[in-house]
Amino acid sequence: MSGFDPASYAPDHFAFAFADRVATVTLNRPERKNPLTFESYAELRDLFRALVYAPAVRAVVVTGAGGNFCSGGDVHEIIGPLTKMTMPELLAFTRMTGDLVKAMRGCPQPVVAAVDGVCAGAGAIMAMASDIRFATPAAKTAFLFTRVGLAGADMGACAILPRIIGQGRAAELLYSGRSFSAEEGERWGFYNRVCAADALAGEAAAYAKMLASGPTFAHGMTKNQLNMEWALPIETAIEAEAQAQAICMQTKDFERAYHAFVAKQKPVFEGD
Amino acid sequence: MSGFDPASYAPDHFAFAFADRVATVTLNRPERKNPLTFESYAELRDLFRALVYAPAVRAVVVTGAGGNFCSGGDVHEIIGPLTKMTMPELLAFTRMTGDLVKAMRGCPQPVVAAVDGVCAGAGAIMAMASDIRFATPAAKTAFLFTRVGLAGADMGACAILPRIIGQGRAAELLYSGRSFSAEEGERWGFYNRVCAADALAGEAAAYAKMLASGPTFAHGMTKNQLNMEWALPIETAIEAEAQAQAICMQTKDFERAYHAFVAKQKPVFEGD
Amino acid sequence: MSGFDPASYAPDHFAFAFADRVATVTLNRPERKNPLTFESYAELRDLFRALVYAPAVRAVVVTGAGGNFCSGGDVHEIIGPLTKMTMPELLAFTRMTGDLVKAMRGCPQPVVAAVDGVCAGAGAIMAMASDIRFATPAAKTAFLFTRVGLAGADMGACAILPRIIGQGRAAELLYSGRSFSAEEGERWGFYNRVCAADALAGEAAAYAKMLASGPTFAHGMTKNQLNMEWALPIETAIEAEAQAQAICMQTKDFERAYHAFVAKQKPVFEGD
Repeated sequence: MSGFDPASYAPDHFAFAFADRVATVTLNRPERKNPLTFESYAELRDLFRALVYAPAVRAVVVTGAGGNFCSGGDVHEIIGPLTKMTMPELLAFTRMTGDLVKAMRGCPQPVVAAVDGVCAGAGAIMAMASDIRFATPAAKTAFLFTRVGLAGADMGACAILPRIIGQGRAAELLYSGRSFSAEEGERWGFYNRVCAADALAGEAAAYAKMLASGPTFAHGMTKNQLNMEWALPIETAIEAEAQAQAICMQTKDFERAYHAFVAKQKPVFEGD
Repeated sequence: MSGFDPASYAPDHFAFAFADRVATVTLNRPERKNPLTFESYAELRDLFRALVYAPAVRAVVVTGAGGNFCSGGDVHEIIGPLTKMTMPELLAFTRMTGDLVKAMRGCPQPVVAAVDGVCAGAGAIMAMASDIRFATPAAKTAFLFTRVGLAGADMGACAILPRIIGQGRAAELLYSGRSFSAEEGERWGFYNRVCAADALAGEAAAYAKMLASGPTFAHGMTKNQLNMEWALPIETAIEAEAQAQAICMQTKDFERAYHAFVAKQKPVFEGD
Repeated sequence: MSGFDPASYAPDHFAFAFADRVATVTLNRPERKNPLTFESYAELRDLFRALVYAPAVRAVVVTGAGGNFCSGGDVHEIIGPLTKMTMPELLAFTRMTGDLVKAMRGCPQPVVAAVDGVCAGAGAIMAMASDIRFATPAAKTAFLFTRVGLAGADMGACAILPRIIGQGRAAELLYSGRSFSAEEGERWGFYNRVCAADALAGEAAAYAKMLASGPTFAHGMTKNQLNMEWALPIETAIEAEAQAQAICMQTKDFERAYHAFVAKQKPVFEGD
């Protein structure tokens, strides 16, 4: 399929670790609150695309170094150059950033975002594009595109954010660009859990490890269906799931679960 | 239309009662927490399909006997046999279970789920496929397919659950298979009301009776539109409602409401 | 484009004011709690359609006079005549009311609803069709169509309300026709903010003014995308945003924001 090897993968623009079948991506320019650059966007996109062919990786954690998640596109390294680009160059850029979201949704591994401190712009988008989101009480999340003169329509936010927190709350955030607290985010369904700052990394890792020890082929099907049924009529979605689940019923993990149940044991899943 | 007679209907695999124009379906193998079997799936599907042609039935309550709602597909009677089936047999099964959800959404009567205790797997799906959900504080609801090695994509869950509680919360439940409490469910919009255990049956019956005494032709149109507009563009949905509501404006119930209002009386609706 | 001049516009069926680039529409038959009539529906529709070609107007506030928002279609002036109409006449009416929602969603200006007291029927629809909703503690909001013998499917409610508050809560409101409190509405994501009664007008005006001083071309694109991506597949939505945001990156407001940032100043947006 591809030569992606999580044990030896060494990206240039973020930190990467692999343990317990969980890949951890850490945005790590902490002195600038972990901004994204043209290079880090592209390298993240390529990583998530490679994960499609990396069965050894069963779950992913995305986080930031130094008490912040990600400050978004760097003003000097990204916004400045954008103001000088031609339309074809601009579209190439917005398509590349959109491709990062497509790649995060397109890989079969569930992605857990672990968010502390600043989570802004493209950083908020990366959290939004994840499957599960944990935050610390200090997390400040802002879809702040409007603050730099742009639309809230960035990397899928007008489609995805309303599905997570509702159309009214999403509109308010996207028009105002304001930040919201972890408490608001949890109340609205953006954050799945609020953790103490010193517990965040551990809780996200434990959750990802729990997912990685589950029936990961089936998890990949869950993720695929969550994406694919997004805009299907109900009847079509139900047929899609009849097919998807019939496939999963021919996995060994399904059989393992049954035999473990009969033997009154806990099943050991292997992802096939 | 059909020969379905709610007064004489006597199913083999669940209990059925009919009073005040409300049909009550009670899953009743309480010693096993009311699991579903191949036979009960099929009989439930057939009942909800028959309700399309049963104008005497104006609303439906679905509940479970003995302090639990439904434990889902029986491990011995369903999961065991499934592990031995061919793909065509598996797809026939997943399509049959999906057909139960289609039938629950497809009948014109609003369905009120009254949930106490265990509400798991296909039981959680039956609650999800209902229109209104009441729970007791002891309700434990779990989309636990992942626990038996399967995808969360079962009977429409990846399409329907995110519309009820948001994409982030749905993802967390479907990947983890964990149960959630009635309090969480109410906070997230899954449960419409939390009732004391000894009040559940009464409150669900009263609510269904209130619906049954309303303009039930119009209720059926509301249900149809809630299903049909699921994945329509806004403009198309608005045109669909212009047509649907114009139809309802030619019902006698609309006229009854107007005359009652003018006479300062409470309207008596008859569903035509 | 058109001759709409907000400074001289003087509607017959509601009050209109224009200041700080914000248009304020006040439903003002307070002795009847501001009902809608055939004429006010049509005039509101025409106003929101004209706003597409009114670049001087940057945001809109919709509110009601005398402590109530809007009691919906007048029973004597609308419901009575409807009971006597032919089907073509009824469909012409339901399409006209639907056109009001289409026009509110179709104008590029964000619409802020400021709701006090009664907000019922078509009044609740106008609040729902707005982008941002503020309420006072006394707001009583009801999608009460079922109370007059009709379906909850009115002017897009079965499509739009579930996206704002979730499918389960929307179903319960549309079947029962019951009113909900401002506190419930805020908890569910229908209301963005609850304000003291004497602060409502000021807070809505300040919020609209804040939006009007933002990058309003980009806001119009946000609104367009929130509508357009409603029922798109994720991948298509992301491509749509790549195009939409690339357009916004060629506005002067984007450049203004960048230069202001470099100069450590607050950007002054002009909407072009």
